[in-house]
Amino acid sequence: MSTCRCEGDDLTRRFAIVGHRAPSRGKINLNDLAGGSGRIDVLMRAINAALFLSHGIRKDSEITLHLMGGEGRPRRINFDGSVLWGVHPDERALAGQVSKVLQEPLPAVGQWFELHPGLSHSGGDLQTTIDEWKKSEITMIKLDSDAPMLWSDNNESIPSDIGFFLSDDRPFTDSELSSLDESCISRSLGENWIQGHIAIGIVHHQLDNGFPLNL
Amino acid sequence: MSTCRCEGDDLTRRFAIVGHRAPSRGKINLNDLAGGSGRIDVLMRAINAALFLSHGIRKDSEITLHLMGGEGRPRRINFDGSVLWGVHPDERALAGQVSKVLQEPLPAVGQWFELHPGLSHSGGDLQTTIDEWKKSEITMIKLDSDAPMLWSDNNESIPSDIGFFLSDDRPFTDSELSSLDESCISRSLGENWIQGHIAIGIVHHQLDNGFPLNL
Repeated sequence: MSTCRCEGDDLTRRFAIVGHRAPSRGKINLNDLAGGSGRIDVLMRAINAALFLSHGIRKDSEITLHLMGGEGRPRRINFDGSVLWGVHPDERALAGQVSKVLQEPLPAVGQWFELHPGLSHSGGDLQTTIDEWKKSEITMIKLDSDAPMLWSDNNESIPSDIGFFLSDDRPFTDSELSSLDESCISRSLGENWIQGHIAIGIVHHQLDNGFPLNL
Repeated sequence: MSTCRCEGDDLTRRFAIVGHRAPSRGKINLNDLAGGSGRIDVLMRAINAALFLSHGIRKDSEITLHLMGGEGRPRRINFDGSVLWGVHPDERALAGQVSKVLQEPLPAVGQWFELHPGLSHSGGDLQTTIDEWKKSEITMIKLDSDAPMLWSDNNESIPSDIGFFLSDDRPFTDSELSSLDESCISRSLGENWIQGHIAIGIVHHQLDNGFPLNL
């Protein structure tokens, strides 16, 4: 497995994860993230993997949660590692941050409102994020275990800005797939359906180590 | 990056993680795993990454926690994916399982006592685990970001049973390093000091996909 140290090292990595049952407003039960809170534990682990090294925060990474559950309109929450500070990597602490956001009035679709450096929220859903990323000319990849592998022996081009879409413990809905397939290429990290946060960790690993991408 | 599907697919993967401040007895505060409980959150994420796919448990993997903190002798806890059932992947639920173990009398050094299918505990420390693995002829690897890379273009042999040692948020102590360096080879997953659970996820990924190992 040959690796190269090239433009890939300076990539900005974006991750977008959909929480199909995670509530977009109201209170989160911090003592029951997996059961009563719509598997929001899955999203907290995704934040951890997207942003944290063993000591410190990745400055080149950000993650957008899509909270599609509960009553009312969906909410998006963005954690931006380039300016974020004062967060802890454990599930409960991260859920505490998200819980505070859910107490705030929901901004309009596409209007990002910063609550704390590196922590913003907005109305909108997966399609809104796809539209925003398309405008920013981000190379968009849907992670899908059935697709061709993400890495390759021949990397013809490495984008400067790359975004990955993944789902929580449930597959993307037909409507989400339809939106994604219009704008993304699909790539796999292997045949196993691994956990979302592990997938994020593997993507970082491949980009950190300059593995040639199959784009 | 060429891959091969070979013996590596059927490898048993063992992980041993040292929790330098994680208590070996007493009560765990489930509401403060990161602060008041000796960074036991780091170990819970390691269990998650070692054992869980998105849906289901890896039958080919096990992890041994080394609880070196608190008063009294150290304790080891083993989660064996081949027979484990009834566990949930979130930090709090896993810590609840560990907390129950800490209420039990500590078995003698090297004496494994099964509390539940796939959940055992024993007295002993890192050296005890090294000695046990050596007897079982397990190929032992210390994960160390400064070492040569774990993967290579040429894999001359793939062991049937492979074990990885990693530390929590603190580096191995001099005494632990001395024990490890006598019996292990050191291999890296890259220059960044990544979180332990992410390292476990990457090891699984490399073995799942038949990446040639540099052993």
